[in-house]
Amino acid sequence: MVDKPGKAVVLLSGGLDSATVLAMARKDHFQCIALSFDYGQRHRIELTAAKRVADAGGAIEHRILTLPIGELGGSALTDATIDVPDASESEGIPVTYVPARNTIFLSMALGLAEVTGCRNIYIGANAVDYSGYPDCRPEFIAAFEKLANLATREGVEGDGFRIRAPLIDMSKAEIIRTGIDLGVDYNLTISCYNPSTEGLACGICDSCRLRANGFQVANVPDPTSYQARD
Amino acid sequence: MVDKPGKAVVLLSGGLDSATVLAMARKDHFQCIALSFDYGQRHRIELTAAKRVADAGGAIEHRILTLPIGELGGSALTDATIDVPDASESEGIPVTYVPARNTIFLSMALGLAEVTGCRNIYIGANAVDYSGYPDCRPEFIAAFEKLANLATREGVEGDGFRIRAPLIDMSKAEIIRTGIDLGVDYNLTISCYNPSTEGLACGICDSCRLRANGFQVANVPDPTSYQARD
Repeated sequence: MVDKPGKAVVLLSGGLDSATVLAMARKDHFQCIALSFDYGQRHRIELTAAKRVADAGGAIEHRILTLPIGELGGSALTDATIDVPDASESEGIPVTYVPARNTIFLSMALGLAEVTGCRNIYIGANAVDYSGYPDCRPEFIAAFEKLANLATREGVEGDGFRIRAPLIDMSKAEIIRTGIDLGVDYNLTISCYNPSTEGLACGICDSCRLRANGFQVANVPDPTSYQARD
Repeated sequence: MVDKPGKAVVLLSGGLDSATVLAMARKDHFQCIALSFDYGQRHRIELTAAKRVADAGGAIEHRILTLPIGELGGSALTDATIDVPDASESEGIPVTYVPARNTIFLSMALGLAEVTGCRNIYIGANAVDYSGYPDCRPEFIAAFEKLANLATREGVEGDGFRIRAPLIDMSKAEIIRTGIDLGVDYNLTISCYNPSTEGLACGICDSCRLRANGFQVANVPDPTSYQARD
């Protein structure tokens, strides 16, 4: 799919999904500005991973912006007083839900896109494996694209913005197969909600389980480095 | 208008409009959490004004969150290399337009609202005097409300959010008359894009002209302290 390529902002967490999205945006012939956030997440080692992924993935630039989402509280991912549950405990919208996170991330991406002349924003939102997060659904992405084109100079006076969520309907195994085909080195990525300070995955959180299962279903060796367990 | 009063987040810049909105939200019987942003704006003295206004306006809490909007560049309000124009130079979308500002502000307000149990968010957007800003139009506000209710746990599992922009169709004079009726002390507010370090208004920027004209049309003495000019 080559639709007027040019520059794109790619939201990059350092995880498996967004690393794949960066590779897909590059395949779409976009020059990519990778955008990561330091938002008080417990798993801040993912920012180190994001830098590795941006470099390896051929981003022309990598920006890290600091956001005070952690100050809002209310999520196990930013609030040390809330435990990150094992996968088996999850039901409905998980406690790892961060209020308005993708809305905030896309808003910042929109500002950056407008200033840097990007008309495309890529996000690794996925509705299949993470159906518990309301801001990972196709209708959310569509509503944000509509908003973006009402909110901005580019939307009003120019050609407008496209919000691209190419993983939205893919299973984790499909995402992994797509990334492998595009040469993504998943060894560089970190998905764990609760990694060690060295970046080793816990192997038991929701995100680790989904990731491990994805490699298994995709029939691809899992490159993840896990913490030793008793 | 008393529609299930409870708690509300009120975006508070320290200017005339948002001070009026806080008074209107209080009249609507909401307990108000005032929310301001330190985003690298040149006129940071407005944060001092915001604190005064929050105190005088009866907010139960005042939060100031730091946002890296200034790092994005592209606006005369955050970029010292772009001159703030006199009112006479403005045409179309002004150079004081900050890319995606209201989208970003409302996104943060949404996160705070969800965490603190507020279902209402007040914003002083106004389409009449500031028709140049795309993110001050009613269709933008409606699109954000729709997005908010797709993006969040409260939107999916609860009663959802209301984005209230009570000034949207009001002239500056109407806003001033409304605020005076509600006891707002406009002497506490700062509207100027280019104030002195002591908080004195320049008297010649777009925002100063609109404000001064508003007091004149409303037939209310202008309490603004202006810088001495040669």
